[in-house]
Amino acid sequence: MRNICVKCSFCGTAYHGFQRQNNSVAVQNVIEASLTRITKADVHINGCSRTDTGVHAREFYFSFRTDSPIPCSGLVKALNSILPGDIAVSGCTDMDDGFHARYSCKGKEYEYMIYNAAVRDPFLDNRALHYPYKLDTDRIAVAGKYLTGRHDFSSFCGYDGLKEDNVRTVTDLRVSRDADMVSVFISADGFLYNMVRIIIGTLLDVNEGRREPDDMPLLLEKKDRCCAGDTAPAYGLYLNRVFY
Amino acid sequence: MRNICVKCSFCGTAYHGFQRQNNSVAVQNVIEASLTRITKADVHINGCSRTDTGVHAREFYFSFRTDSPIPCSGLVKALNSILPGDIAVSGCTDMDDGFHARYSCKGKEYEYMIYNAAVRDPFLDNRALHYPYKLDTDRIAVAGKYLTGRHDFSSFCGYDGLKEDNVRTVTDLRVSRDADMVSVFISADGFLYNMVRIIIGTLLDVNEGRREPDDMPLLLEKKDRCCAGDTAPAYGLYLNRVFY
Repeated sequence: MRNICVKCSFCGTAYHGFQRQNNSVAVQNVIEASLTRITKADVHINGCSRTDTGVHAREFYFSFRTDSPIPCSGLVKALNSILPGDIAVSGCTDMDDGFHARYSCKGKEYEYMIYNAAVRDPFLDNRALHYPYKLDTDRIAVAGKYLTGRHDFSSFCGYDGLKEDNVRTVTDLRVSRDADMVSVFISADGFLYNMVRIIIGTLLDVNEGRREPDDMPLLLEKKDRCCAGDTAPAYGLYLNRVFY
Repeated sequence: MRNICVKCSFCGTAYHGFQRQNNSVAVQNVIEASLTRITKADVHINGCSRTDTGVHAREFYFSFRTDSPIPCSGLVKALNSILPGDIAVSGCTDMDDGFHARYSCKGKEYEYMIYNAAVRDPFLDNRALHYPYKLDTDRIAVAGKYLTGRHDFSSFCGYDGLKEDNVRTVTDLRVSRDADMVSVFISADGFLYNMVRIIIGTLLDVNEGRREPDDMPLLLEKKDRCCAGDTAPAYGLYLNRVFY
């Protein structure tokens, strides 16, 4: 059987996340239905990540097994002709048998977009957090630096999301501004449930003076989600890159 | 009575154009309902332009009369707090009694966005025409230049849209490329029904060799919509600027 990996991207606004849902439409439902039509056999895909409702992906991979003889280039064309316009497939490769889009993943980069202007931009509705207050990117970058490295991120894990091992290595946390758009880029070998969104909520606390940048080490030590900030809205979050 | 002009912008995807509709939701319906709530009196607004279903506006003005004493800054805040996220208000001014957002308008600039890449961008779904073929911007710019100046644009007017006077002055028609995004900017003292969209459809005919750039003068002379190209999709069209 072939083991195929597909590279895609999607705007998450219309979907209940990536992972298949029974009573609502997730990206996985739509892709599996399309592949089943194309290959004329039931297809089950494995995504590189679950994503929350409304989260976007500029780069996303999924893998699946199939007996179909359709060449990879044909699968790309067929998928793009069937899938809705808010999902796009840009590549497809036959992989070794051991490859799995999720378990083979070595790391990911997320971007959180904050539109920092007095008036909202209607074209960024559901695509960036509108934050009309003063945003001190230097200050939140200092706080963010404390989170880089290998830590137990239990304080930054949504309730019910804790696992046995909550240690992750954040390899990079950068804050950049391009005119009114502030982006926080976070790369790690893995992410806990809601981790990026809770980090963003906590950095906004730092911006507003409710926390100091050097409160971060103690917050990590607490290993208690109650101690961190609010969970920032899902729609500002983009899965940007996936590392294998 | 005060005569107020409001500057706004909207993503047109969710709306049946700007102009009030009885059986579907237009931008005007939503704004009038909001202003009626805010001023506690029925409000009728006049937009600077009708726009087709799905057309966007980066800059749009409407005017209305009211007895409300709410200062302009308060109206901006109140509107932005009530309006949905795909409509944003950025300014409000008390005008002379004679001002009318539509009749006082001296000209407009539209932009038509064409995403010219092999694979579609899911974040441009409903926001740009995806055109995966070779696009020769120099060639369509030459064709476009023939349309600048004062002409009878009947050939570029949608059926049922013809008026007594179909002469308009196109003050500028530019084609620009930024990586994969090609934009056609058209400024004029006024636009006929579907005029920009038919111009774009005709320019794409020129790109594909079905017409020559220097066919344009004859096409204008024909004064017959049948002779022009298809009407390009509404979702690539943006009202960019309005001149008073």
